[in-house]
Amino acid sequence: MSEIPYKIYLDENDLPKAWYNLRADMPIKPAPLLNPTTHQPCTREELAQVFCDELVDQELNVTDPYIPIPDEIRSFYRMYRPSPLTRAYCLEKALGTPARIYYKFEGNNTSGSHKLNSAVAQAYYAKKQGLKGVTTETGAGQWGTALSMACSYFGLDCRVFMVKVSAEQKPHRRQLMGVYGANVTPSPSNTTEAGRRILAEFPGTGGSLGCAISEAVETAVKNPGYRYVLGSVLNQVALHQSVIGLEAKAAMDKYGVKPDVIIGCAGGGSNLAGLIAPFMGEKLRGEADYRFVAVEPMSCPSMTRGKYAYDYCDTGKVCPLAKMYTLGSGFMPAANHAGGLRYHGMSPVLSELYDEGLMEAISVEQTKVFEAAVQFARVEGTLPAPESSHAIRAAIDEALRCKETGEEKTILFGLTGTGYFDMTAYSRFQEGEMSDYCPTDDEIAKSFAMMPDVK
Amino acid sequence: MSEIPYKIYLDENDLPKAWYNLRADMPIKPAPLLNPTTHQPCTREELAQVFCDELVDQELNVTDPYIPIPDEIRSFYRMYRPSPLTRAYCLEKALGTPARIYYKFEGNNTSGSHKLNSAVAQAYYAKKQGLKGVTTETGAGQWGTALSMACSYFGLDCRVFMVKVSAEQKPHRRQLMGVYGANVTPSPSNTTEAGRRILAEFPGTGGSLGCAISEAVETAVKNPGYRYVLGSVLNQVALHQSVIGLEAKAAMDKYGVKPDVIIGCAGGGSNLAGLIAPFMGEKLRGEADYRFVAVEPMSCPSMTRGKYAYDYCDTGKVCPLAKMYTLGSGFMPAANHAGGLRYHGMSPVLSELYDEGLMEAISVEQTKVFEAAVQFARVEGTLPAPESSHAIRAAIDEALRCKETGEEKTILFGLTGTGYFDMTAYSRFQEGEMSDYCPTDDEIAKSFAMMPDVK
Repeated sequence: MSEIPYKIYLDENDLPKAWYNLRADMPIKPAPLLNPTTHQPCTREELAQVFCDELVDQELNVTDPYIPIPDEIRSFYRMYRPSPLTRAYCLEKALGTPARIYYKFEGNNTSGSHKLNSAVAQAYYAKKQGLKGVTTETGAGQWGTALSMACSYFGLDCRVFMVKVSAEQKPHRRQLMGVYGANVTPSPSNTTEAGRRILAEFPGTGGSLGCAISEAVETAVKNPGYRYVLGSVLNQVALHQSVIGLEAKAAMDKYGVKPDVIIGCAGGGSNLAGLIAPFMGEKLRGEADYRFVAVEPMSCPSMTRGKYAYDYCDTGKVCPLAKMYTLGSGFMPAANHAGGLRYHGMSPVLSELYDEGLMEAISVEQTKVFEAAVQFARVEGTLPAPESSHAIRAAIDEALRCKETGEEKTILFGLTGTGYFDMTAYSRFQEGEMSDYCPTDDEIAKSFAMMPDVK
Repeated sequence: MSEIPYKIYLDENDLPKAWYNLRADMPIKPAPLLNPTTHQPCTREELAQVFCDELVDQELNVTDPYIPIPDEIRSFYRMYRPSPLTRAYCLEKALGTPARIYYKFEGNNTSGSHKLNSAVAQAYYAKKQGLKGVTTETGAGQWGTALSMACSYFGLDCRVFMVKVSAEQKPHRRQLMGVYGANVTPSPSNTTEAGRRILAEFPGTGGSLGCAISEAVETAVKNPGYRYVLGSVLNQVALHQSVIGLEAKAAMDKYGVKPDVIIGCAGGGSNLAGLIAPFMGEKLRGEADYRFVAVEPMSCPSMTRGKYAYDYCDTGKVCPLAKMYTLGSGFMPAANHAGGLRYHGMSPVLSELYDEGLMEAISVEQTKVFEAAVQFARVEGTLPAPESSHAIRAAIDEALRCKETGEEKTILFGLTGTGYFDMTAYSRFQEGEMSDYCPTDDEIAKSFAMMPDVK
C-alpha cells in the first residue's frame, strides 16, 4: 500500500479563504478590454452597465494578489469542495508507465463541472447588489447548469440563451436547468435584436456561442435589475477558478509532491487558468519551475493556429474587445465537433502567458480524445466529459513518453467534469461515426479577415 | 461555524475491512431459498449452478458476523469510497426545522448509485473463480452500469438483459454500459427460451424485471464459464451493501452523533439493508435503539400491501423461491411509474425484520416524491435519483413534524444515487404530466393468485 491515498481530500477548513489573482504577479499584464466603438480602454462605468459592480472591480484588479472569498460563497463551496485530488493508480498500471499521474476532479457536483466555482461567485455578487436576475449564454450546457444552480440557491432569476443546436441535441441539459428554475431560450431567438438580425441573415442557423452572448448581453442591458454573467474567458472567472489550483497545490504539498508538468483542456481557458494559477505564480516569482500545457481541439485551435490580437468577444459585436489568441469571432467549429471547447478566443491571461512562452499549447484530434476518454473510464471508473478528455489524452501521451524514456515524471491534469450528458457523442465514437476535421488555412484566413482593426 | 462539517469524509484507511453480516445477529433468520420444483431448501450445489461459489457461501452464511473484504475489492472501493456523509444544513434551513438531517451519499461514482458496492464484489469473485463472464438484468439501468464498470475493471465479459421499455426510454444508460464494454440486450429477446415464450404470449410487451431475470439466468446456466449475478434482494447483496451503514456509523461516531431515525428507499431492499445493518445489529443486541423506516412507491407497495410468503423471484419461475414480502411475481407497476423500485418482492432480510416489527414501512406518491426531489436539488445542489427521492420525501416529512413539535431529532437517510439519467421523468413532473396511481385491491389479488403453494 502506497502512502499516497487514491484520493487526497483536504479538510473543509482548508478550503481557500481567498482567490489568487495571478495578474498581480505577471510582469506584463493582460491587455485591457476596449470599448468596441471608440477602441479606448473600457471604464469602470462602461463595464458596470453590463457586469455587476464588484465583478467589474475584480475584472480590472491587476494588483492585489489575494481577494477574500466571502463567507456566503465559502458556505456554498462547502457543499462540494474541497474537491478530491486523485492519484490515477489504475491508469498508471494500465499504461505501464513509471510516471505518477494526478488529477484534480471538478465533476463531483450536479452541474458536472468546475463552472460552478465561478457561477456561485457571480450569482452572489448579483444578489448582493440587489439585482433581480442575470442573463448568460451556454453551449454544451455546463455553464448554464452551474449558473441555474447558483441562482436557485440565492433566489435570483436566471435567463439562459442556449445555442440552438445544443438545446436540440441535449434536451436533458435543458431540462436540468429547468429543475433549477432557469428560463432557457434557444439562440438565436426572436426575443432580441441581435437574434432577429442573425435569424434574418441565416434563417436555418443552429446558432453559436458568439450569437448567444450577444443576445444575453442585450437582454441584460435592456432589462432593469439584470446584469450579464459569463462562464469563461474573463479575468474575474480565471480569478474564481483559482480555487482549483489552490486546492490542488495544497493537497500535493500535504504529501510533499511537486508536479513536473500541469495539463489542462482549454476552450475559453477558465479551468486551465485556475488550475495553473498558484503554480504559475511560483514560476513568475522565480520560486519554482513547472511545464504548463494547454490542450485544445484541432477543430477549434485558438492558440495553436490563432492570432494574438484584439477581437470581438461575440458575433453581435456588442461586447468589449479583448486582446487574446483568436480565430476571429466569425469562426465556427465544423458540425462534427463534439462537446465544448468551441469558443473562437481564449482567456487574455492565458493568451499573454502563452505569448511570452511561459505555457505550451497543443491541439488534439477528437477521435484520439474519445479513445483516451474510454480508456480512462474503464480503468479509473469516472466517465469524463469530452472537454476534460483533451487533458486526459495529453496526460496519457506524456505518461507513454515516460514509459519510453523511463522518466518518473509527476503529471497533474485537470479533470474538469463528467460526461453523463454526452452519451450521444460517446455513442457516435463507439460506433465509428466520429471523424476528425481541421479547419483549412483558407477558412481561418476568412475568419481572421473579419477581425476589427485596432491601432 | 458549526463544528460538524457539511461533509464528513472518513480517511481511506477507515474504509471497512469486513462486511457486516446482520443475519448473524438475527434471532430469527431469514427463511432459506427453496428449489422451485421440489420446494426443498436449495443446496449449495444447486445454487452453485447459477451463482459463483464464494457468493453461494455468502448467501448461505447466517452465522459469521463479519466477512473480510478482499484487498482487490478494497482497492476498487478506494476509487470512490469512503463516500461522504453530508449534513443537510441548507435543507434544514429551508425547512426551518429543528431536526438535524444527515444523508449518506452513494452517487459519487459514474454508475451513479450504491449498486457498484456489490457489483465489484460479485465481479471479483467471478474472476477469482476463473469464469469468462457474468449475466444479469437491469431495469432503470443503475445496476447494469455498475456491473459493466466492475467487469471492465476485472476484464470479464458482461451480458446485460435490459427491460425493453427502459432500453428504449433510456438510450443513454444503454450507451453508457457500452462505453464500459457490456453487451446489452433489450428484454424480452429472441436469444432465450424464456424470452421467446414471453414474446409469444405477449408480443408487444415492454418487458419486466422478472422476465429479464429469467433470461439472464438461462443464459448463465446454458453458457459454460458464465454465472448469474443480481443487484438486489439477495442476502449476499445486503451483505456487500453493509459498507454503506458501516461508513455512515463510523462517520457519525466520529462526531458523537446518534441518529434517532434511519430512512431509506426500498425496491429490492439492498441499499436500505446495507444502510441500517450496523445500527440494526446494535438494536438486536440490545445495545441501542433506533427507528427504521423503509419507503416504497405507492405504485409498487411490496411491504405495505404485499404478503409475507414464498414466491417466485422471476416471471419465468427458473430461480429459487424466496420468502419475502411480495405482490406476486406477475405484478407490474402501472406504466406511469417512473424510476426504479419496481420489483414485486423485497429482501428476505428486510422482510423478516419488518415482519417482526423491528422496522416500519410507508409508501409515498410519486408526485410528492418529485416535489421533494426538486426541493432538495435546489437547496442541496445534488440532483437526486427518483429512487433516492422516496427517502428524501420521508426525511422532509419527518423534519416538518419536528418543526411542529419542536423536537430536535437526528435524521439519517440514504441518498442512493443521482438523477442525471432521469431527466425525462423530471421533465414530466415539471410539466405537470406525472400522475399518481395505486394498484387496486383486485389487481393485487390477481397477482397474489399466481403465487406458488408452498407447504
